[in-house]
Amino acid sequence: MMNTPLTISSMLERAERYFPNKTVVSRTHDNIYRYTYEEIGKRARALASALTKLGLKRGERVGTIAWNHHRHLEAYFAAPGIGSVLHMINMRLPPDHLAFVINHASDQILLIDEDVLPLVEAIRPQLETVHTFVVMTDKDQLPSSTLEPLYSYEALLAEGDDCFAFCDDIDENEQAAMCYTSATTGMPKGVEYSHRGIVLHSLVQGHVDTTAISENDVCMPVVPMFHVNAWGLPFSATFYGATQVLPGPAFTPQLLAELIEKERVTFTGGVPTVWLGLLQVLEHHHYDLSSLRAVICGGSAAPQSMIERFERKLNVPFYHAYGLTETAPLVSFSRLKSHQKKWGKGEQYQAKAKQGMAVPLIDIKGVNANGEIPWNGEEMGELLIRGPWVADRYFHDERSTEAFKDGWFHTGDVVTIDEEGAIKIVDRTKDLIKSGGEWISSVDLENAIMSHEAVLEAAVVAVPHDKWQERPVACVVLKKDKQATKEEIVDYLKPQFAKWWLPDDVVFMEALPKTSVGKFLKRALRKELFNQSRFL
Amino acid sequence: MMNTPLTISSMLERAERYFPNKTVVSRTHDNIYRYTYEEIGKRARALASALTKLGLKRGERVGTIAWNHHRHLEAYFAAPGIGSVLHMINMRLPPDHLAFVINHASDQILLIDEDVLPLVEAIRPQLETVHTFVVMTDKDQLPSSTLEPLYSYEALLAEGDDCFAFCDDIDENEQAAMCYTSATTGMPKGVEYSHRGIVLHSLVQGHVDTTAISENDVCMPVVPMFHVNAWGLPFSATFYGATQVLPGPAFTPQLLAELIEKERVTFTGGVPTVWLGLLQVLEHHHYDLSSLRAVICGGSAAPQSMIERFERKLNVPFYHAYGLTETAPLVSFSRLKSHQKKWGKGEQYQAKAKQGMAVPLIDIKGVNANGEIPWNGEEMGELLIRGPWVADRYFHDERSTEAFKDGWFHTGDVVTIDEEGAIKIVDRTKDLIKSGGEWISSVDLENAIMSHEAVLEAAVVAVPHDKWQERPVACVVLKKDKQATKEEIVDYLKPQFAKWWLPDDVVFMEALPKTSVGKFLKRALRKELFNQSRFL
Repeated sequence: MMNTPLTISSMLERAERYFPNKTVVSRTHDNIYRYTYEEIGKRARALASALTKLGLKRGERVGTIAWNHHRHLEAYFAAPGIGSVLHMINMRLPPDHLAFVINHASDQILLIDEDVLPLVEAIRPQLETVHTFVVMTDKDQLPSSTLEPLYSYEALLAEGDDCFAFCDDIDENEQAAMCYTSATTGMPKGVEYSHRGIVLHSLVQGHVDTTAISENDVCMPVVPMFHVNAWGLPFSATFYGATQVLPGPAFTPQLLAELIEKERVTFTGGVPTVWLGLLQVLEHHHYDLSSLRAVICGGSAAPQSMIERFERKLNVPFYHAYGLTETAPLVSFSRLKSHQKKWGKGEQYQAKAKQGMAVPLIDIKGVNANGEIPWNGEEMGELLIRGPWVADRYFHDERSTEAFKDGWFHTGDVVTIDEEGAIKIVDRTKDLIKSGGEWISSVDLENAIMSHEAVLEAAVVAVPHDKWQERPVACVVLKKDKQATKEEIVDYLKPQFAKWWLPDDVVFMEALPKTSVGKFLKRALRKELFNQSRFL
Repeated sequence: MMNTPLTISSMLERAERYFPNKTVVSRTHDNIYRYTYEEIGKRARALASALTKLGLKRGERVGTIAWNHHRHLEAYFAAPGIGSVLHMINMRLPPDHLAFVINHASDQILLIDEDVLPLVEAIRPQLETVHTFVVMTDKDQLPSSTLEPLYSYEALLAEGDDCFAFCDDIDENEQAAMCYTSATTGMPKGVEYSHRGIVLHSLVQGHVDTTAISENDVCMPVVPMFHVNAWGLPFSATFYGATQVLPGPAFTPQLLAELIEKERVTFTGGVPTVWLGLLQVLEHHHYDLSSLRAVICGGSAAPQSMIERFERKLNVPFYHAYGLTETAPLVSFSRLKSHQKKWGKGEQYQAKAKQGMAVPLIDIKGVNANGEIPWNGEEMGELLIRGPWVADRYFHDERSTEAFKDGWFHTGDVVTIDEEGAIKIVDRTKDLIKSGGEWISSVDLENAIMSHEAVLEAAVVAVPHDKWQERPVACVVLKKDKQATKEEIVDYLKPQFAKWWLPDDVVFMEALPKTSVGKFLKRALRKELFNQSRFL
């Protein structure tokens, strides 16, 4: 058969051709823009021609440090369209990590939001490969900056060729994008995404049984576009001609609720803390969220209580997805199978709180010291993944050999897999609490604690113990105006867990330290508790 | 990223792993069987091991001459699973064509239904490459036959290894299946399907915006499994874990209605004549078809009147699809875009009667003497197609050079493409009527005539004309107990067409000659009219 390649530009071309009048709604610092796909296509082509004029070559990397907006979307297509690689950079990285990833990726050009300028100016002396800076500003005047040469994005586009033809000789296995993921120790690790991987990933996101993105949707990716292709949503939404709503910089839960109501958003995705924030807003203000057909949650395990609140109180279907930077990211999706729809609500919510079964083309298995774990929902093992959008190495990184072995990516996530094939993340291998030769899941305890009506957030970490090796300690943030004692929390857990699972202590905190993508920073918590010497 | 290949066996493995208890309902000559995917998987593996024991090697072809049933489904997976090629053979071919395709494909083994035995016995002396025959019978005893060696399918399976491992080193570009398509002149032309092409085709059939096959479905392919992978439906239904209903040999419209009612079929696909037959049955008998979420029609253009009857009278959503043997087959699908859902019903039906826009990964264009046609719904051109499940040649056939040029498959279908990107098949290049330097679409006239309440079927063909070069003549079959005159038919057309489009004559017939896949055989009609010398 014809060996026509799977390329990113073909996804944009589909939108230009079949959905030229569908729109991308984009919030920036100062404005709300509405562009049609016809316009987005022209602007992406003009950007592609501008990047070429700036000297960017095939295989070279262009970095973006930006929020979710139309210019970032244009870069998503322009860079791969000329055979270069879009390096999305997490703006929340500490400065030394930021400089490291830009140098390590050998970024040639940086496209940056105006509010990020000071960050980049601060690390400018350390940058070894960047020769050009472009600021994605709404303003006619360039902001004053020590960066040079510094171009205005809109000025470049005005001089660009909006009929520029994308490369027609891309090999689908060429790299199209890359992203770095934080490491437990050391500098972030780079992951490359191929054209083939991203297109196949988008094909699966159009499936009825996964995210089901279609032309009917109004899709709002809340997950940042500087993080794992914003879960691939900007690619898929464009491919299928969905309307897109890009919520822009520094959004609040209120702003998200307003956008959903005003733009009639049907589909959105983000991490649990975003949805917790939205739920809190909804307790005090009414918004019409009736347009939503799906809220997708990933990045960390969503407590079952949160899923129930979305579905029962708000009547908004809520789905758990699971993936990692190394998997581009979609690995599994928690949608009820037809026979599960006949189950009682309680069982259904239990099933929905799992991370679900692997999506098509993705293979999984769980492995522990005894070999491959049975699919019984009980035995725990490290999750191994393979598939066409799973990385096979870290970018120029010796740590590859630990994580990529025998054709499988070793996730470091501890899971059970049940009879339905649904994955349940039990813990990170490093966060798992090893007590007296048995394993205790910090995630299970956290979710149970977070279902307590006084609790806003909770993290459970292992502290060293002379007799049991490790014991669980809960770190808890209470809701404003709510009270709870250590005893109340532990009593609340007693009906749900074996006695030896119960935390030895509950530490109340003002806030929990989080990673740059909103996950609990357990390493910092353990260090803090260790420094307090309370548990030694 | 990992270069994990797209293989057919991975689709069955998904069903075995995630949907082991979902069922395949299979009607054979004597029984209705219900097998789970766990059982289908074991049986397919046992067949794969049996085929290996019978000496079938990688890359060699195994022919099937069979109806839609579970054994045929097992062969769909077993042959590609061991790296051999499933050659599905159209049992309605005339004997000399049947012998030709079997020899031309170098089939080594034939898997045949019991009712096909006499056909194969008759051509046995001509078969040059087949070394083994297998009869797919329900009976314990082998039927008496002159074929040898002749094995019983079930006896082979009983001795096979139902844990047999499929090949794990398939290159996705290897051939998995093949099918021959009738030619206007000469012997049928062979088309090969790769693992990659079939898997990508299945991925698109899971899309909300196309056939939307999912785990919730009960999928009944009426299109024969000896014809273009039964439109890929058995592959997709298995991949997504849908329940399948395989309607078996020599089914009637009544039988299909009974199966839909009894098995709560949600999705079915077939050619227009099948659905015309079903509509006729429903005029006299009541069946509960409320489970149907989609009836897909392809193979020939469905008259708009038929679409309206399905949707208005039966409340059954009806969709037009378009494709060819060379395109594996899905090229386009006629589903309303979101803005079209706001249109009036009349406009909607007009849109639904078109063949729709190309599905993801498929590129199309229309070309005539002036170059590429604009997408204005008016200008006609030959449809050219490219994409990863489009053939790049005929199998060992010199006619390849005419049809495959410059990276495009030249379909021989004349189309318009409208502003929405929807294809409308106007005619076959060879059936188009060239009258006085202008083109007349035989398909448009046929559809209009078939919407007349007295008409069962109509075909319009060109007859030679001294002055105008060609003129249209309508061949019409009336419904039983209905009457219409030539003048009534022509008067009925007058409001819809320019005067010079109106047929010069209307010939009433008892039946229209059809091809082996149920399309009107216009070549035979033209010959018949020519022989009658009425129009010279």
